[in-house]
Amino acid sequence: MSVSETIGSLGENASLKRTISRLNLAAAAIVGPGDDCAVVAAPDARFVVTTDTLVEGHDFRLDWSSAFDLGWKAVATNLADVAAMGAIPSALTVALVAPTTTEVTWLENFADGLRAACTALAPQAAVVGGDLASGSQLVVSVTAHGDLQGREPVLRSGAKAGDVLAIAGTLGRAAAGLQLLQAGREDWVRAYDEWVAVQLRPTPPLAAGIAAAEAGATSMLDVSDGLVRDAARVAEASEVTIEIDPTLLIGFEATLEGPAQALTTGGLVSGSAEELARRWVLGGGEDHGLLATFPAGATLPRAFKRIGVVLAADSAGHAVRLGSTGLDPAAFGWDSVTG
Amino acid sequence: MSVSETIGSLGENASLKRTISRLNLAAAAIVGPGDDCAVVAAPDARFVVTTDTLVEGHDFRLDWSSAFDLGWKAVATNLADVAAMGAIPSALTVALVAPTTTEVTWLENFADGLRAACTALAPQAAVVGGDLASGSQLVVSVTAHGDLQGREPVLRSGAKAGDVLAIAGTLGRAAAGLQLLQAGREDWVRAYDEWVAVQLRPTPPLAAGIAAAEAGATSMLDVSDGLVRDAARVAEASEVTIEIDPTLLIGFEATLEGPAQALTTGGLVSGSAEELARRWVLGGGEDHGLLATFPAGATLPRAFKRIGVVLAADSAGHAVRLGSTGLDPAAFGWDSVTG
Repeated sequence: MSVSETIGSLGENASLKRTISRLNLAAAAIVGPGDDCAVVAAPDARFVVTTDTLVEGHDFRLDWSSAFDLGWKAVATNLADVAAMGAIPSALTVALVAPTTTEVTWLENFADGLRAACTALAPQAAVVGGDLASGSQLVVSVTAHGDLQGREPVLRSGAKAGDVLAIAGTLGRAAAGLQLLQAGREDWVRAYDEWVAVQLRPTPPLAAGIAAAEAGATSMLDVSDGLVRDAARVAEASEVTIEIDPTLLIGFEATLEGPAQALTTGGLVSGSAEELARRWVLGGGEDHGLLATFPAGATLPRAFKRIGVVLAADSAGHAVRLGSTGLDPAAFGWDSVTG
Repeated sequence: MSVSETIGSLGENASLKRTISRLNLAAAAIVGPGDDCAVVAAPDARFVVTTDTLVEGHDFRLDWSSAFDLGWKAVATNLADVAAMGAIPSALTVALVAPTTTEVTWLENFADGLRAACTALAPQAAVVGGDLASGSQLVVSVTAHGDLQGREPVLRSGAKAGDVLAIAGTLGRAAAGLQLLQAGREDWVRAYDEWVAVQLRPTPPLAAGIAAAEAGATSMLDVSDGLVRDAARVAEASEVTIEIDPTLLIGFEATLEGPAQALTTGGLVSGSAEELARRWVLGGGEDHGLLATFPAGATLPRAFKRIGVVLAADSAGHAVRLGSTGLDPAAFGWDSVTG
């Protein structure tokens, strides 16, 4: 087994065989990888399904992300969407487009990342099928499935005036990690590796999704494109206004103080450390926390922190306000086409 | 609505909205596109799932395939895998990577192709979710799901010595169409548009997959990479030798005579028209016919034609023979990484 073996020299079948052997087995897999289709159990006669794609140079850079990181992130981002429905992840399929010069060891490390993310985040779930094709640019497209275990799915459209807005997971850490990487200072990347790790290998709070569904959450999504932008999606689908309480963000901002100080003191980012931390909290998405609304009287699951309230749609047409100030969602966060 | 609108100018959300509005609704969709996940019915508490990717320049060329063609083909190739399990297609997700300069009208035509293929091939099925990202190279990755309706899945591994080998659908037509396109002669592409159409918009015989399962098929797959190469997959998974009867291929070869004559007489391909037609039948894959084995006594479903037999693994170690001649699968057909 030479280190210079590439997927081009091995071909699709042999490359896939080497990859599949490194994966764990899905508890729900009745037929696993290797046939025309996998067969997956769907105990409550429904399944949830989502698909999300990572593109080289746009969603990741190979000088920042290892093959392992990339496999991890592709799994984690998709499982967050499953959890955001109140479902438990069951099975994933992975389509990888890679240059023929890609080394098979890279592919093996990528598979190790897929497996590690499943094991860490949703040990019953695993990759049950995939596809390997060659192309000029690395593309990872994952489709994830989940089981609602008899619960009703939690949609974006159910938030009601009077509901409490709450978040499980971190806010702004992945954005801080990205900006540290972009700064190109290896000493900072080492010093603030905890923030960088959230960008490269996010750990969405998947169990909180089920807990939210069981606690009666009226709406939920995972924060993938930024708090304001994703809150606006809930507001628009539910025809309400969401008011984020700035005083309830202070705890999240405090956890970003170190990187924010470094970047602003170093002069690489203008403004104050406090302003930068707030920008990360409001606009940073890739932590993949779960944003949910609950009836006013509900007991929030332990993982959730209250950060605001749901109001009747305000007369000014604001989807999201920070206190009484209307926000423009387009000014915050990320669009997967335009960046 | 200007023709110069691009996905880059519209962004992901608005582009997706324009696309989703053109799709049909899946009968099995409990929650359709627009939330974190779709929710799909799985009446028999299992689902089959497969994923397949088309990459620009490798699996298709935009000077040959329209956006409509590409949408059609991405759906058809995946539905063939669902049918090859003996399942009925239920729902698809589509991940598209496209340059930001892609016009929204192109995206709409692509969506029309997705819809038309579903309507023509599996009207109960539809796209229930998707993802749009920007990248330098067009990539279409489709994940398709199906319902086994209580039947056992038909795997590749169940062929037994004494079984009959049979095929539903066409053989070699898509390969003929590809070679006509590669010849770059527009008059031929027009004259033999029936063969070119199989390459650009394949119509796999999906209902034959269910019929095969009901008739007791012992193994099945869709011929995506070539008859010999895919038959070898069945032979290896089932630990048997498959013997194709050359006299039973004559009917398939006869349907390729026109294009084969044109290409050999025109001097663009060496050898005789008969040799070329046989090469297409043995090595051409993209018709996505269904190759199945049946117990010797079974009544073949109407769509299937007998083309060989299953033997105990022969002592020479041949997976596939043409009559008594062993064939090297690597010498026929297509590898999705190496071409």
